Amino acid sequence: MENSENHQETIVPPVEGVAGGGTAYGWSETLVRDPNLLKGAIDPAKVHSSELVHVWCMPSTANVGPQDMPRELEPISLLAARNERESVQIAIRPKVSWAGSGIAGTVQVQCTDLRSTSGDRLVVGESLRMRRVVPVIGVPDALVPLELPLTQLNLFPGETTAIWVSIDVPNAQPPGQYEGELIITATGDVTESTAQFLGKSERHQLYGELKNCLDVVEPIDGKSPDELVERVKSATSSLRRILLSPPFSDLYSENGVVDMMDEDAITNHSIRLKLTLTVWDFVLPVTPSLPAVIGISDTVIEDRFGVEHGSSEWYEALDQHYKWLLQYKISPYFCRWRENMRVLTYTCPWPADHPKSDEYYSDPRLAAYAVPYSPVVSCGDTAKDTLQREVEILRTKNHWRKAYFYLWDEPLNLEHYEGIRNMASDIHAYAPDARIMTTYYCGPSDSPLASNNFEAFLKIPEFLRPHTQIYCTSEWVIGNREELAKDIIAEIQPENGEEWWTYVCMGPSDPHPNWHLGMRGTQHRAVMWRVWKEGGTGFLYWGANCYEKAMSPSAEIRFRRGLPPGDGVLYYPGQVFSSSQEPVASLRLERLLSGLQDIEYFKLYASRFGRDESLHLLEKTGMYQGPERYTHEHMPIDVMRGEVFRTCRSDNNI
Amino acid sequence: MENSENHQETIVPPVEGVAGGGTAYGWSETLVRDPNLLKGAIDPAKVHSSELVHVWCMPSTANVGPQDMPRELEPISLLAARNERESVQIAIRPKVSWAGSGIAGTVQVQCTDLRSTSGDRLVVGESLRMRRVVPVIGVPDALVPLELPLTQLNLFPGETTAIWVSIDVPNAQPPGQYEGELIITATGDVTESTAQFLGKSERHQLYGELKNCLDVVEPIDGKSPDELVERVKSATSSLRRILLSPPFSDLYSENGVVDMMDEDAITNHSIRLKLTLTVWDFVLPVTPSLPAVIGISDTVIEDRFGVEHGSSEWYEALDQHYKWLLQYKISPYFCRWRENMRVLTYTCPWPADHPKSDEYYSDPRLAAYAVPYSPVVSCGDTAKDTLQREVEILRTKNHWRKAYFYLWDEPLNLEHYEGIRNMASDIHAYAPDARIMTTYYCGPSDSPLASNNFEAFLKIPEFLRPHTQIYCTSEWVIGNREELAKDIIAEIQPENGEEWWTYVCMGPSDPHPNWHLGMRGTQHRAVMWRVWKEGGTGFLYWGANCYEKAMSPSAEIRFRRGLPPGDGVLYYPGQVFSSSQEPVASLRLERLLSGLQDIEYFKLYASRFGRDESLHLLEKTGMYQGPERYTHEHMPIDVMRGEVFRTCRSDNNI
Repeated sequence: MENSENHQETIVPPVEGVAGGGTAYGWSETLVRDPNLLKGAIDPAKVHSSELVHVWCMPSTANVGPQDMPRELEPISLLAARNERESVQIAIRPKVSWAGSGIAGTVQVQCTDLRSTSGDRLVVGESLRMRRVVPVIGVPDALVPLELPLTQLNLFPGETTAIWVSIDVPNAQPPGQYEGELIITATGDVTESTAQFLGKSERHQLYGELKNCLDVVEPIDGKSPDELVERVKSATSSLRRILLSPPFSDLYSENGVVDMMDEDAITNHSIRLKLTLTVWDFVLPVTPSLPAVIGISDTVIEDRFGVEHGSSEWYEALDQHYKWLLQYKISPYFCRWRENMRVLTYTCPWPADHPKSDEYYSDPRLAAYAVPYSPVVSCGDTAKDTLQREVEILRTKNHWRKAYFYLWDEPLNLEHYEGIRNMASDIHAYAPDARIMTTYYCGPSDSPLASNNFEAFLKIPEFLRPHTQIYCTSEWVIGNREELAKDIIAEIQPENGEEWWTYVCMGPSDPHPNWHLGMRGTQHRAVMWRVWKEGGTGFLYWGANCYEKAMSPSAEIRFRRGLPPGDGVLYYPGQVFSSSQEPVASLRLERLLSGLQDIEYFKLYASRFGRDESLHLLEKTGMYQGPERYTHEHMPIDVMRGEVFRTCRSDNNI
Repeated sequence: MENSENHQETIVPPVEGVAGGGTAYGWSETLVRDPNLLKGAIDPAKVHSSELVHVWCMPSTANVGPQDMPRELEPISLLAARNERESVQIAIRPKVSWAGSGIAGTVQVQCTDLRSTSGDRLVVGESLRMRRVVPVIGVPDALVPLELPLTQLNLFPGETTAIWVSIDVPNAQPPGQYEGELIITATGDVTESTAQFLGKSERHQLYGELKNCLDVVEPIDGKSPDELVERVKSATSSLRRILLSPPFSDLYSENGVVDMMDEDAITNHSIRLKLTLTVWDFVLPVTPSLPAVIGISDTVIEDRFGVEHGSSEWYEALDQHYKWLLQYKISPYFCRWRENMRVLTYTCPWPADHPKSDEYYSDPRLAAYAVPYSPVVSCGDTAKDTLQREVEILRTKNHWRKAYFYLWDEPLNLEHYEGIRNMASDIHAYAPDARIMTTYYCGPSDSPLASNNFEAFLKIPEFLRPHTQIYCTSEWVIGNREELAKDIIAEIQPENGEEWWTYVCMGPSDPHPNWHLGMRGTQHRAVMWRVWKEGGTGFLYWGANCYEKAMSPSAEIRFRRGLPPGDGVLYYPGQVFSSSQEPVASLRLERLLSGLQDIEYFKLYASRFGRDESLHLLEKTGMYQGPERYTHEHMPIDVMRGEVFRTCRSDNNI
């Protein structure tokens, strides 16, 4: 499977002239098994679905849009570790229209459990999920859940529809080769099946007729036996007629009522697509090796879902978001912007003395958590008292090593830096081992630390020490000069617990890795490859739900003015796309997850062969050489994963 | 109404920072009358539709795509002559999702008759039509008919849907001001109403229960009166229960059966959009002033619709296409490509001695017709005999002045030119007054007529005379050098019945006027403005149905390889978009019609004030100054039309 230009299935006939006219007629002529079946009204029950739709597979790094053209259908073969999610896409495009009502037609998409030869299973609906890829501002991005194991999809003329198939391999899944099928069947259209439904007027008529049967015989008690017999005969005759009438005609057969099981969706006209998954013995660590802390705007939640800050609905809404996000191996923090880019950040909305606090912070899937500097919900105590109490409780806990304070978003001048110092001093007074994280991309503008911007930027650790432990810098500063990462690292004192983290936001822009809408799939995934190569030990992203203000859960999603499309938005409210309240992930969030999983592969490889060899692997597969040189194709990713699998699986250890 | 960038409805709040964070939150905040109605499940019956959808109007020259952003809703005010079609677009975009099933929601769109104060009407379904604008390869193009007077549309999250509203003013329509309304009402979604339908399993259950009622009392005759009473009581009790059961619950009320009339689509929650049309006394000529001859590939019809050349189904299919196309004020000819771009062209598939021949050629809407040089359907006679018979019959008819012969598409060398000469000689032997049309863009490559290409091109009339009467040249040759038109015209001898026509095909390309997909609406319409300005007396387009080969009527439309998108395709088979066999027009075909109608306005104006004044009108309104300088906005078109109306209406003549 390649993520490049389409190849043609047929040979291109010679062009017959230079302009206009009969030029190039017939070049895309495709073999139709029996053209007569496609004349006039097409009955999908009588034609193999492959005559009606193109079906093909695409890798998870492909952006499959409505204009994508068909490719050869090849079986799917995937590799996954345990505790890993691996995804693939199925694209479907109608060859003809058979529905006759604004859509080209409807297909049923079904998937089976994946089974190993030893009888183990990956179960549909638990491990296997399907989501429809929905464009956002014209770019494939939202992944809207589909019903399982069987779903119906409307196809539109001249449009490709993509389905995102994910397999989550449980921690304890026995390694082995698993096989299952995806089955795609063209069906009668919705309108047609609606015709088999009983509409209001038909129900109305039926109701009247049945009511009439009743009125004919009732009241029973006052009637003579003869009259009753006559009336019952009349009523039963009506009832018999009703049962033979059109609303029930398809249910009545010579053998009586038709067996409902005849409706089985799978027919010998279905397109069957084999899906093979190799599960290997590597288990991705439950706690991600690289903390990826991702901001969630509580303000956006409050506005859109209409929950009042501090109300029980508010806690519930935040809790729902938090739990949903954990599946992406990220460490969420809630965030509220204050004056001058001061931020109030907190991973748990409940105070440290609340049982929820331990539940949140002890979760092994959480790699890092933000402790609020001031009360998240006003409680009557002073801010200082609250801070002291929080810190004194938390620092006694085992999970305290995951704690950090994030106080200010990108300080720009001395006053900002001074603000950070003051808050950090307060925190360190209660807990000298507390970690303060500061994001920045420049030194104070009103007091240059060096003669040029990059030198000034390099001096921030020295300038902020000891008031910051996690120096979190914008990838935008590095640009395409990867070697600058070494200069940054040289300023960090890991021996004193200092770390270097990075972040992306508005910048860097194309062609550098980032999560903007419209970037390539490998460009999204490469954000984490870059982190691995540069050697940062954590990552921050400012916002996953920072779309424009709206006052209804299902309000249209608009990106914020002035930001690149998709910046600050990694998932959507479910209500926009369906009646479900479950958030809807973006392709980009899935690729963030894939990138984090790639890091576990690199880390495993490095643990065997050293970090340099892991960088060599990145390079030699053509996967990632630098922020402007990374693969546009999916293949190198599979090659890298295959190489780690080949060299690190346990039967190699013997 | 402007065809330019969106204006914002609200003032943009200050951006709060330079990167990331809380920047620009709340800029698009819109006033919601009662936010509580938009929390949780939204009931469209309880909320004004303007809370749920944006509705706005766009001119017919706008390309309204899924990403188009809302504008202010303003009432529609149109001007039209009699025998004119005037169109406008209504755009709808959901503000929220209320359907909860993959779509944002469903709206009902309804339109009323337009009525004048004196009681005259333009009737919905006859004069007034609505079509949905459907993208083709991502560009709004196909106009798929909607049901009238009431239609339901599914809206998708974050997507704008456009409706094309056309008004055809009959010849005899009394002038005056007509008013009507478009009414848009958000409704429960299809899924919801499907829930009120009875599905198969519910019908199955109902069937079983009713069958059981019957079985309880039958057979009646063998039962004692007491037993019968008991059994009838049991059955009626069941029947009563059935009538109160969910399938009928919405039909049962305390007052008995609910009145079906409650379902009236228009509510006080509807968005009502006023449509005013001024019909003026000018009647566009039934026979278009400018013959626009447009090719229809018979081969494409044969392949796609599976009709065998010469069969009765074939004649029917061609007849259907011909009749449908006449509404666009064009003069269709069928076309079959032969070797070396030799073409067999014919407006009527029946021979001249068939009654259909007169029906076709006498139709006053037809401005010109192609006579086949050789038999369209083989009839046993020699080609020469057939030609002679055709010509001898046709030249006696009054419609013979509309006849032309189109023999070769763009001759390129001496052999091609010689071929034209030979055929023309044959024709002129039978009818010296026959008009031969030749399309060309260059002289013979193997025998240059002059030292440079344009000079050689200019010499073609001299070179081909007397074997061609209609010199039909590519606009591509002129490029942006309008003054060259004068040089071409100087070579034509109108006194000897010669004419200069033009054509567009692959070229000219953007920014020049043409009918390619993706060009601006005014660029499509300007093809005819250009003809008027340059002074050609006819126009040719090589193909209106020349999409790629397919063997099923509903097969996906693909454009031919090597041609710009949309080139040679001005309408689509209806079967691709619905079960209707009626062809589906493109936006571009509508704009071709509008351009031809504009020419009637120019001609009327020129008849009063002279041709130069008509060109001055084109210029001063900013509508068209040259092939690279024409309006991108719609406004100048309305200004031009208003000026012609103001200066040429009959009460000005007194």
